[in-house]
Amino acid sequence: MMVVKVGGRTLGNIPLIARDLVGHQPFVLVHGGGDLVTEYSKRMGVEPRIVTSPSGIRSRYTDERELEVFVMVLAGKVNKEIVSSLIDLGVGAIGISGVDGPTLIAERKRRIIVVERGRRRIIPGGYTGRIEEVRTDHLRLLLDSGYNVVMAPLARGTQGEMLNVDGDQAASRLSSALKPDYLIMLSDVEGVILDGELVSRLTPEEAEELAVRLGAGMNRKLMMAADVARSGVRVVISSGLVDEPITEALNGAGTHVIPS
Amino acid sequence: MMVVKVGGRTLGNIPLIARDLVGHQPFVLVHGGGDLVTEYSKRMGVEPRIVTSPSGIRSRYTDERELEVFVMVLAGKVNKEIVSSLIDLGVGAIGISGVDGPTLIAERKRRIIVVERGRRRIIPGGYTGRIEEVRTDHLRLLLDSGYNVVMAPLARGTQGEMLNVDGDQAASRLSSALKPDYLIMLSDVEGVILDGELVSRLTPEEAEELAVRLGAGMNRKLMMAADVARSGVRVVISSGLVDEPITEALNGAGTHVIPS
Repeated sequence: MMVVKVGGRTLGNIPLIARDLVGHQPFVLVHGGGDLVTEYSKRMGVEPRIVTSPSGIRSRYTDERELEVFVMVLAGKVNKEIVSSLIDLGVGAIGISGVDGPTLIAERKRRIIVVERGRRRIIPGGYTGRIEEVRTDHLRLLLDSGYNVVMAPLARGTQGEMLNVDGDQAASRLSSALKPDYLIMLSDVEGVILDGELVSRLTPEEAEELAVRLGAGMNRKLMMAADVARSGVRVVISSGLVDEPITEALNGAGTHVIPS
Repeated sequence: MMVVKVGGRTLGNIPLIARDLVGHQPFVLVHGGGDLVTEYSKRMGVEPRIVTSPSGIRSRYTDERELEVFVMVLAGKVNKEIVSSLIDLGVGAIGISGVDGPTLIAERKRRIIVVERGRRRIIPGGYTGRIEEVRTDHLRLLLDSGYNVVMAPLARGTQGEMLNVDGDQAASRLSSALKPDYLIMLSDVEGVILDGELVSRLTPEEAEELAVRLGAGMNRKLMMAADVARSGVRVVISSGLVDEPITEALNGAGTHVIPS
């Protein structure tokens, strides 16, 4: 059994990824789709809200209206299109979100401090959560019966609200709980690149040391990979843009973080 | 085990319906949501397309863009909001659509004849399907393990496309396959009304005879109810707008179509 994360531009390669997954069942495929959320938010007249922290970091704020678009695009459009691609190939697939079950339970920041026109203000945190708990009984039930699961990165908040969660975090936490043979994190890069060279093999300790030297995005991914590897699962960070991304990852492509 | 259909205005009563369902697990809840699709289509700039048949009947045509809204609103927004309402009450719920599995396989009309500016034209049928096959292995698996299922009325087309299907038809076909103790079709009327009086009990044969005397909407619902009752399942058509719609239906409210 394996967990596969597909996000960003690799979502455009779903037909080939799906074809490659046929021979690697059962699997849990966790998808992203944030770019599409931006596109559909605009179409629905929801302007992205950017907030600035006291330290000057600007970030996107998910308000209630944008959360609604997240739910529609991720749990609706993207999830069902991936399920359809898999069924096209004769692969049984059930698409759910982290809300269902519930599977993923997350904590939303109650309050955040933002700076607006030079003044500090306290506002409620956006509809984004950090995953605190993972429940997998229903996933095991489906996987053990030969169904594959396609998972949208939403979670149930501890206050009952729906929350948007990070896809890499969802895939990582699910992997630590499900203990698959592999977690394969497909992205639009070949793996961890250091001084222009692909790093092909790391222990969890090496991954953590290396993470601090990497840019935003890959550093978080590598920290999560180290965490999952510590739970005994082999993690591969590799390209989702090639013809056979799963087969290549299993054959050694990308960066492998290996339980020590 | 029961199958419950919630559509139209009764969707607004989900909090009370969910509360009433707590004591009647496990269940499959099939929901509608067409009115919301109209609202969100407008917000997304998708104009409803109305076609006229050669006999002069005007009907809504689901084109590819509107189908996308169906998927986002039904499988995304409505489905996950109902799942959340159930989980709020401690009820384990998994939300899927008929595409998932697949559960519902439907046939789309290849071509339809429409009249435009006085001239007949042949156009491809809209993205709407008639359910031809129902697969329930994964539903039984979940129900037998104590999970309830919330189902969006979408289907996988025989050509691999996603299709919008009628919620009553989805609930009926699922009931004939799953053989629940009850199919409860909640709507915004008390039941079948004839000459101003509620009809409280019908055999499948009586239901079929009566159906032809009823207005559009209820006639189709009653024909489906007769079909399901013939498969051995007791069907109730009753109000979803009361405080305890499930309890009242089981206590005799509405119109019961009883296997002969």
